Amino acid sequence: MKLLVVNPNTSAPMTAQIAAAARAVAAPGTTIVATQPDFGAASIEGHYDDAFAAAGVAQQARLHGAQVDGVVIACFGDPGLDAAREACTAPVIGIAEAAFHAASFLATGFSVVTTMTRTCVIAEHLLHKYGFERRCRGVHGTDIPVLELEAAGPALVTRIEAAARHALQHDRSGAIVLGCAGMADLAAQLQQRLGVPVIDGVAAAVKFAEGLAALGLHTSKQGDYARPLPKAYAGWAASLGFAPSAVGSSS
Amino acid sequence: MKLLVVNPNTSAPMTAQIAAAARAVAAPGTTIVATQPDFGAASIEGHYDDAFAAAGVAQQARLHGAQVDGVVIACFGDPGLDAAREACTAPVIGIAEAAFHAASFLATGFSVVTTMTRTCVIAEHLLHKYGFERRCRGVHGTDIPVLELEAAGPALVTRIEAAARHALQHDRSGAIVLGCAGMADLAAQLQQRLGVPVIDGVAAAVKFAEGLAALGLHTSKQGDYARPLPKAYAGWAASLGFAPSAVGSSS
Amino acid sequence: MKLLVVNPNTSAPMTAQIAAAARAVAAPGTTIVATQPDFGAASIEGHYDDAFAAAGVAQQARLHGAQVDGVVIACFGDPGLDAAREACTAPVIGIAEAAFHAASFLATGFSVVTTMTRTCVIAEHLLHKYGFERRCRGVHGTDIPVLELEAAGPALVTRIEAAARHALQHDRSGAIVLGCAGMADLAAQLQQRLGVPVIDGVAAAVKFAEGLAALGLHTSKQGDYARPLPKAYAGWAASLGFAPSAVGSSS
Amino acid sequence: MKLLVVNPNTSAPMTAQIAAAARAVAAPGTTIVATQPDFGAASIEGHYDDAFAAAGVAQQARLHGAQVDGVVIACFGDPGLDAAREACTAPVIGIAEAAFHAASFLATGFSVVTTMTRTCVIAEHLLHKYGFERRCRGVHGTDIPVLELEAAGPALVTRIEAAARHALQHDRSGAIVLGCAGMADLAAQLQQRLGVPVIDGVAAAVKFAEGLAALGLHTSKQGDYARPLPKAYAGWAASLGFAPSAVGSSS
Amino acid sequence: MKLLVVNPNTSAPMTAQIAAAARAVAAPGTTIVATQPDFGAASIEGHYDDAFAAAGVAQQARLHGAQVDGVVIACFGDPGLDAAREACTAPVIGIAEAAFHAASFLATGFSVVTTMTRTCVIAEHLLHKYGFERRCRGVHGTDIPVLELEAAGPALVTRIEAAARHALQHDRSGAIVLGCAGMADLAAQLQQRLGVPVIDGVAAAVKFAEGLAALGLHTSKQGDYARPLPKAYAGWAASLGFAPSAVGSSS
Amino acid sequence: MKLLVVNPNTSAPMTAQIAAAARAVAAPGTTIVATQPDFGAASIEGHYDDAFAAAGVAQQARLHGAQVDGVVIACFGDPGLDAAREACTAPVIGIAEAAFHAASFLATGFSVVTTMTRTCVIAEHLLHKYGFERRCRGVHGTDIPVLELEAAGPALVTRIEAAARHALQHDRSGAIVLGCAGMADLAAQLQQRLGVPVIDGVAAAVKFAEGLAALGLHTSKQGDYARPLPKAYAGWAASLGFAPSAVGSSS
Repeated sequence: MKLLVVNPNTSAPMTAQIAAAARAVAAPGTTIVATQPDFGAASIEGHYDDAFAAAGVAQQARLHGAQVDGVVIACFGDPGLDAAREACTAPVIGIAEAAFHAASFLATGFSVVTTMTRTCVIAEHLLHKYGFERRCRGVHGTDIPVLELEAAGPALVTRIEAAARHALQHDRSGAIVLGCAGMADLAAQLQQRLGVPVIDGVAAAVKFAEGLAALGLHTSKQGDYARPLPKAYAGWAASLGFAPSAVGSSS
Repeated sequence: MKLLVVNPNTSAPMTAQIAAAARAVAAPGTTIVATQPDFGAASIEGHYDDAFAAAGVAQQARLHGAQVDGVVIACFGDPGLDAAREACTAPVIGIAEAAFHAASFLATGFSVVTTMTRTCVIAEHLLHKYGFERRCRGVHGTDIPVLELEAAGPALVTRIEAAARHALQHDRSGAIVLGCAGMADLAAQLQQRLGVPVIDGVAAAVKFAEGLAALGLHTSKQGDYARPLPKAYAGWAASLGFAPSAVGSSS
Repeated sequence: MKLLVVNPNTSAPMTAQIAAAARAVAAPGTTIVATQPDFGAASIEGHYDDAFAAAGVAQQARLHGAQVDGVVIACFGDPGLDAAREACTAPVIGIAEAAFHAASFLATGFSVVTTMTRTCVIAEHLLHKYGFERRCRGVHGTDIPVLELEAAGPALVTRIEAAARHALQHDRSGAIVLGCAGMADLAAQLQQRLGVPVIDGVAAAVKFAEGLAALGLHTSKQGDYARPLPKAYAGWAASLGFAPSAVGSSS
Repeated sequence: MKLLVVNPNTSAPMTAQIAAAARAVAAPGTTIVATQPDFGAASIEGHYDDAFAAAGVAQQARLHGAQVDGVVIACFGDPGLDAAREACTAPVIGIAEAAFHAASFLATGFSVVTTMTRTCVIAEHLLHKYGFERRCRGVHGTDIPVLELEAAGPALVTRIEAAARHALQHDRSGAIVLGCAGMADLAAQLQQRLGVPVIDGVAAAVKFAEGLAALGLHTSKQGDYARPLPKAYAGWAASLGFAPSAVGSSS
Repeated sequence: MKLLVVNPNTSAPMTAQIAAAARAVAAPGTTIVATQPDFGAASIEGHYDDAFAAAGVAQQARLHGAQVDGVVIACFGDPGLDAAREACTAPVIGIAEAAFHAASFLATGFSVVTTMTRTCVIAEHLLHKYGFERRCRGVHGTDIPVLELEAAGPALVTRIEAAARHALQHDRSGAIVLGCAGMADLAAQLQQRLGVPVIDGVAAAVKFAEGLAALGLHTSKQGDYARPLPKAYAGWAASLGFAPSAVGSSS
Repeated sequence: MKLLVVNPNTSAPMTAQIAAAARAVAAPGTTIVATQPDFGAASIEGHYDDAFAAAGVAQQARLHGAQVDGVVIACFGDPGLDAAREACTAPVIGIAEAAFHAASFLATGFSVVTTMTRTCVIAEHLLHKYGFERRCRGVHGTDIPVLELEAAGPALVTRIEAAARHALQHDRSGAIVLGCAGMADLAAQLQQRLGVPVIDGVAAAVKFAEGLAALGLHTSKQGDYARPLPKAYAGWAASLGFAPSAVGSSS
């Protein structure tokens, strides 16, 4: 089985880090292919960055989606999730949704600990869109910039741990969702320290994608996620259109 | 890895059928242990049957939960789900929730096709409790008794297919969730006929349980799912209490 | 008029205490029959205990429901409420829902003061299921074990009063709902001290059941609460099935 | 016990009819006092009529509320409900809310059959405000003018019955709520014909008011329903102000 | 263009103040006509006052609505909004809704700073009715009486500013809605001090009414806001009925 | 006053058509500047197209937003709305939200008539995100491709009119929202034929933007819409970053 892991930002070290996190949890027969858009922000820390990332995910899904058995979008805002689903037949999973789904199997209520406070609203919008607004009891910013996570030292870990402890107590939560792909490395360590499930979305998304693919389940090509209609695309997107071919085929 | 699949009703042939369905999708290293309560209704077709089933699931989770890596509750009403989570450290997954989660990865809207119309409200309550009330666009009864599914012939399949086609059209849905563990055998066949994802909760629950267990994620033992308090239990439940031992241990 | 009050736990002193509380508010012509299951936990302090209680309520409703004009389920988690409604033609009222309904007639917002913090989520799930999630402005645990309430001394009352005062202030609430059948004795006393309505669910449920019965209103036997279908029940539940007789009859 | 039943419209025959319906279900010791405002519309069939009715209810509650043990607002839009609660210490119940509460004790889903289609939105707003939007599965207008109900002949009853049958089937409901005080007479008859609970809000409100009053529960005078502040009122309302006296006293 | 601004309370100085605030923001060609009911409370600080105000707004809309191009209801509880819409063909805007709509164009979350804490629930009910319950992150009372705002000195402004700063911080909001028509004068000043958008509903309502009227958009006269039905009105409201004339005409 | 109207697709004739529609309703002193991205789909008919459009709107808002007093995003999916708000200090309005807001001032319930059925879900997600899910009673696809609207002949208008009539009847709605910028020309004509308010989002957005700008209200630069953080952007987006200058300045 081959999974495409798209890092929606343009930081190559982060792509490598995410790929490693994905490979660490992938099943024996699973190959991880990691990619990133050739345009957009070095890190996603707001709505503006997210808009470029969504287009970048659409691009990567169009270019590589037909060659894989599942796609993971490795940014906690799930940018371009619906676009990628429209472009692909393979299942597509965002790491925010994956983490929310996983947490809701393990606790009646969870808290999210994320990076910049200004991005909390993005998580809140997703929670609401997906239906987890009652399961999630709080979203907490740490104001740690995303790219500082690439080399998270003990001080940063302590800061995230403190935020998680505060969240568990204040929100009466039973699990922690880490709100950034850059935190993937920290989940095991934090879980051990906190004594509650700590969920990294990259790992969760890989396992859910493997599971769905193993069952022969694909993205619905009927209705809202049907293949994009054939039409002209301009500028750098010119080659990213879809031919008027049969439903379910890939380009 | 060992998974416990609890059939909450007391029909042994159905337990065998569910076990076979679980084994058919389990990963190579996964062992499926199937069990059923020693009391309660032969099939779950209403709230009354469900109450016995919830107690039966609690019993089975108490008796076997500490020996496995994951638990699947194989009745579409997810009876005893919260009770089993309290009783277990391993992840516990209900087949209704598993199917809802899987469907929401694959389509913006799905429909449920179930057995007796009188049980639709149970699915609706679950959808609402779990937060899928906006993703699910309709719950449809076929008024096929649960136990008739054990030997579903072509006529029954045709009836379920017709209900699914009606649901897809009427609800503008992109995927079908089969609303009964007894329909597990039919998913692949219906998916081929309908051309949209058809989700069987038993299969989905097995894959999700495998995935969570592989990641080292367990049911939160802090807060709402903490181990039951030590106390006296009467009657047939007398031996099902928990000792006042350390958090996280099993009995 | 005869009302069945089911204590879902197996503590006989608590059954007696609840019966006394019900009798204290019953109308002159009302007879209170109190009962408890012959199995399950001595107190309900979590989901696991609740699962046995639900089955116990189903059992008691099946055994006695046809002989009474109304049924009250006297545990704040309303265990087995839907099951009992399916099994009975008489109206069935849970004490949590009764208290929520009563409070919403008296204040725009109320707070719940209950026993163990770990059970708050059960109240929250009920509030949401019933539609009171906007009326209730907070659920507060006191971490007083249920069975300690049997002989609540001044210290316990002071502790509950303090929790109620905190809730009124913090939640900007106008009324207090007591979140345990074992607190029934304390309502009048607390109401006098706090100067706001303090609602005990046992009392509220008795009056609502009397009112509905007086109006000739019964549990709907059409649709979701129709009489259970005739089928085999195993083990200790073997005698609790329903015969395939006419709608509305009792066995 | 004395209950004030306020007919919010200015049709005296309808006040008499409502008073009779209330007396028919009142407990032996309950006295019904019926009243109506001295201004406003002869029937309430829209938002405009409702605004006068709300002021009329406030007036009547101010004039008579301190002399009674409970107040019933006998128009299905519950006009002036919050105002009357602010003005009174006795419990105040609207007939729409009473009917919704009663129905939700008896069925998992109910339908409303009302008069003019244009008033359906008023019921829908109330359902939503009160939290019954998930319990109510449909609101159906019959386009029967309110005042024609005063002398409802067999043809009208047949028309309402047909609307109710349609609603039960279409909405998959288990109970019918009659959406007008003028339909109070028809509940028993329709219940017999339809075989499901048929709820008249006047009757339900009387029993709930009796029950709350019997328990010594009053409208919260702390917070949102505190007694109106002393201030000047102009015009015909000049005498309806409140003195700056102690909390809980009546004028 | 002519706009009717109705002050729902009976304080003439406040009517003048509101008229001035409306004129200050009206477009060059817009004439502001300000009016107030001839009955009711001098200020609206609760549900009771609000009931008279709703009738007063209905009266004023009936008397003057046909002669104007738009109507503004200048009390933060939007009393009589639906009634005025039924009575008028011109667009009718409440200042609470106008402020909520404006704020939701400018920030993902806003906070309301209002007068008496006891009226917070009125704002909360409106937020919920209108669908802004997720956009509004908090409603905060200052316990400043409405009529003290007529001559708000520096001390009052400082108090409101402090409440706004607290709200922005505590609610993580990006904008402030002023919760009283009497605060209209303070918006610009507070916006400068706070550095975030501060929204006065009177100003917002005037601009929205101008905009809708300029587009030729009117209140729908089909369905829920159709002209009131012809019927008898009693007492002081006797002359406020509608003739059985053609749809869309004004009296 | 200068307003930027961004057509998110890359069809120049449609940009011209939208600009004309905006100019037709702009106030005398308002200048309309219309623009479109230099990349992306010729029409937005799904999630995939929408992802490019969001990035295109972000680009245009970055390039031109600092020179204007308000921004209108002229595609019914409101692509890039949050991104543009982050990038701009001027108010930013999407045409879908503008139309929903306008409709909710005019009717208790409205229906949306849009182009491709597959895009209905995009409108539904927006309705839910914005809080209009209860005001909107239905979203209806006509399966007219967006670009066919450029030269909408009588047949197309008749088809849209028929869909609108069906929606009004079926949904019990009082107003119609046209779900595509390409339908802007048709609003007046359809309003005349249907006799209910017909709302074009382009016109509504222009008036709301004019109104907010006239009041000196801007997008909040505190919290969730604060200016994007300074960072590297790659590829075609390289020049679209923000300098680390003072809050509120434009680049």
